[in-house]
Amino acid sequence: MTTKSKQRKLRLGAGLHGASGNFAAWRHSDAPADASIQFPYYKRQTLKAESGKFDFVFVADGLYINEKSIPHFLNRFEPITLLTALGAVTSNIGLVGTLSTSYSQPFTVARQFASLDHITGGRGGWNVVTSPLEGSALNYGKKLSEHPDHEKRYKIAAEYLQVTQGLWDSWEDDAFVRDKESGVFFDPEKLHTLNHEGEYFSVKGPLNIARSRQGQPIIFQAGSSDRGRNLAAASADGVFTDHKTLEIAQEFYRDVKRRAKEAGRDPDEVLIFPGILVIVGETEEEAVRKYEKVAELVSIDSALNYLGRFFEHHDFTQYPLDEPFPELGELGKNSFQSATDKLKREAKEQGLTLRQVALRTATPRSLFTGTAATIADTIQEWFEQEGADGFIVVGGEPNGLDDFVDKVVPILQERGLFRTEYESDTLRGNLGLPIPENRYTKRKKELVPAANPTE
Amino acid sequence: MTTKSKQRKLRLGAGLHGASGNFAAWRHSDAPADASIQFPYYKRQTLKAESGKFDFVFVADGLYINEKSIPHFLNRFEPITLLTALGAVTSNIGLVGTLSTSYSQPFTVARQFASLDHITGGRGGWNVVTSPLEGSALNYGKKLSEHPDHEKRYKIAAEYLQVTQGLWDSWEDDAFVRDKESGVFFDPEKLHTLNHEGEYFSVKGPLNIARSRQGQPIIFQAGSSDRGRNLAAASADGVFTDHKTLEIAQEFYRDVKRRAKEAGRDPDEVLIFPGILVIVGETEEEAVRKYEKVAELVSIDSALNYLGRFFEHHDFTQYPLDEPFPELGELGKNSFQSATDKLKREAKEQGLTLRQVALRTATPRSLFTGTAATIADTIQEWFEQEGADGFIVVGGEPNGLDDFVDKVVPILQERGLFRTEYESDTLRGNLGLPIPENRYTKRKKELVPAANPTE
Repeated sequence: MTTKSKQRKLRLGAGLHGASGNFAAWRHSDAPADASIQFPYYKRQTLKAESGKFDFVFVADGLYINEKSIPHFLNRFEPITLLTALGAVTSNIGLVGTLSTSYSQPFTVARQFASLDHITGGRGGWNVVTSPLEGSALNYGKKLSEHPDHEKRYKIAAEYLQVTQGLWDSWEDDAFVRDKESGVFFDPEKLHTLNHEGEYFSVKGPLNIARSRQGQPIIFQAGSSDRGRNLAAASADGVFTDHKTLEIAQEFYRDVKRRAKEAGRDPDEVLIFPGILVIVGETEEEAVRKYEKVAELVSIDSALNYLGRFFEHHDFTQYPLDEPFPELGELGKNSFQSATDKLKREAKEQGLTLRQVALRTATPRSLFTGTAATIADTIQEWFEQEGADGFIVVGGEPNGLDDFVDKVVPILQERGLFRTEYESDTLRGNLGLPIPENRYTKRKKELVPAANPTE
Repeated sequence: MTTKSKQRKLRLGAGLHGASGNFAAWRHSDAPADASIQFPYYKRQTLKAESGKFDFVFVADGLYINEKSIPHFLNRFEPITLLTALGAVTSNIGLVGTLSTSYSQPFTVARQFASLDHITGGRGGWNVVTSPLEGSALNYGKKLSEHPDHEKRYKIAAEYLQVTQGLWDSWEDDAFVRDKESGVFFDPEKLHTLNHEGEYFSVKGPLNIARSRQGQPIIFQAGSSDRGRNLAAASADGVFTDHKTLEIAQEFYRDVKRRAKEAGRDPDEVLIFPGILVIVGETEEEAVRKYEKVAELVSIDSALNYLGRFFEHHDFTQYPLDEPFPELGELGKNSFQSATDKLKREAKEQGLTLRQVALRTATPRSLFTGTAATIADTIQEWFEQEGADGFIVVGGEPNGLDDFVDKVVPILQERGLFRTEYESDTLRGNLGLPIPENRYTKRKKELVPAANPTE
């Protein structure tokens, strides 16, 4: 473990969320107000992250809006299209996007991610989510009551992943012979029809696209509930999570690594990425001033509204602002379960008022607000002390990502924690993850009797 | 009509099909054998078409393969991803892709095309197809018998389009106020929830993306059956079709224009695009030699197999090759209906053998095989005599598209038929089609009482 630890390399992703991770940042004087729908802005940010040798950019998603949704959600790009376009104008950085297994079709999703992966020469990744209850059902021909519950969503997700990964292996890597002389295009022995018949899906296959240079797209998982952790441990290459302190991060990190081991996997191949909101100042005071500037853009009304989103769009304006956070019972359970559990627990433990909870939630001042050196210190501490394998960096204000690339990355590089050049032009290559062998090729090899060791 | 005719401008699309429209072209010495899955190849072709001032590139699709599928179908890009990537590396050319309304979800499809349209600054287009019976059902959780029949598929498609176009109008063009000072991001009066409850779809909306610079993506339609023509007349901006002679093209052209008029539309806003397989020679003889070179790459076995695809993967090897084309009854009706009807009719009328039908189908030698001048003549004739408003050019051999751009386009430009510079950087702008007004804005205007003319 110690030798291995020394070889460990920090990984970095850039979370792209329009004008930054603060939902009122569009009002900031340094942000284009329409950042969420401006392709040149996303392109510039991605090229910036690539100049900082980031492993990947990361794009979140949502399938339902109403008039109360936060500005960034109202008008934004769909991840698959955005990522492919970004892939066409970059050469090394990975492209990871969120797509829900609750409201999509595995054959299409397998194709689209495989196609992204091919177009970018092996740089695609899929952040598998199950969609919290937010009205998404209503946009997909279902009643709200038909939105599958938390448990069922994860069962569906597990089978969905099985189907998708099976489809991705439809063609063995040397299946395409393409012999112009004989006219033989492929070897039928190396084409495999999935014939999946499961509880939720029935998909014949094969997929009409080959594996990419990295074998299969990277799988991310973003749910931190018990079921989310199990899915991550069983199937994910990367886990996107969110923690306020190193202690909590360590608990999560060790727990997921343990579950990965129990699932028969190498825990080093399940990489944990806390998302961090970064604000960099020349001094601590300047960083705090930058934080305050963006925090002041958030009104209490919009903070209450933002809070409501985590609790199935609950209307918090009905409660007094300066009394203890209200008792909400089961509300939030079928939505962002781990986030709402945490909010309720913290409010109780710390005796917070509704106003405090709303403003904290809407404008969190993260541990990663500070000078480049202190931010680098915290990153190093988390990385070296089993808090993280890497981070998904989100600007806490519009200049956050740029400042991180210009000021924090060089320090991490000097300390030998982070690369100065890309090791590879595939995402797996940069993340140090092996190319998964095609399941059929592997099976064939296993069927071949071992050579006589005396020969 | 005559004045209008003079202002008519020829439109050109480039059909991208890997190594060319001939399915054995991957064997050709001038083609990369893996053209169908090589992004740099698609990029080069698209840049070539853009240098020739083409209106758009066009990408077909399919949702099912098996070991008998033609090489190009086995391993190719998914259209949405391919087009967005091509859009990111071009600046004027339109990007039109095929997507089936039988095996997809309107909320997702509306988002993805809107996102393509935004990323490309208003250059997106959707070729609406209903999927012939090819096993697609089996990849989407259905039995073959559940593949909807021709009539039902078109009913679904019509409602699907209604939903999609409704979602695209969720936001009026001036809905996003984005006032940094007041914090007002949008005007709630200009956000519209679709609340669609139809026979096949129930979709609440609104869509989480605004309209693009061209208002809505262009709609193409590609079915030539009676129901296909009605859908085109009612809803399409462009129609992709396929004809062997001018006479047949004229019948189709006049019929669709008549139907468009009957549907209350301006027939000039439903543009008809026959697809043409182009082979250009310095002399007629050279063109024919080029045709023969590619035709010889097709074996009789692969031709029979290719023919089978149009008839629900019927096995034609069971019939004698040199006897009259077999009687097939209803076979092909629920598949590529207009294509199979035509094949059966021609075989009967011309007394063709199975071998002849198979080879003709697999390696058609089109009217557009010849010198640049004769090809330009035929194009001009079809364009001026109500055969076409434009063409979708597909190479009949690997150099077909390049030769067309280098040699035929300059002649069309000299004759004043085709542009020498793009008129616009949106697809609608180049096609000369108006930006559709947002339905809600329009409705409001209609509700405002007319101003008193005496005032």
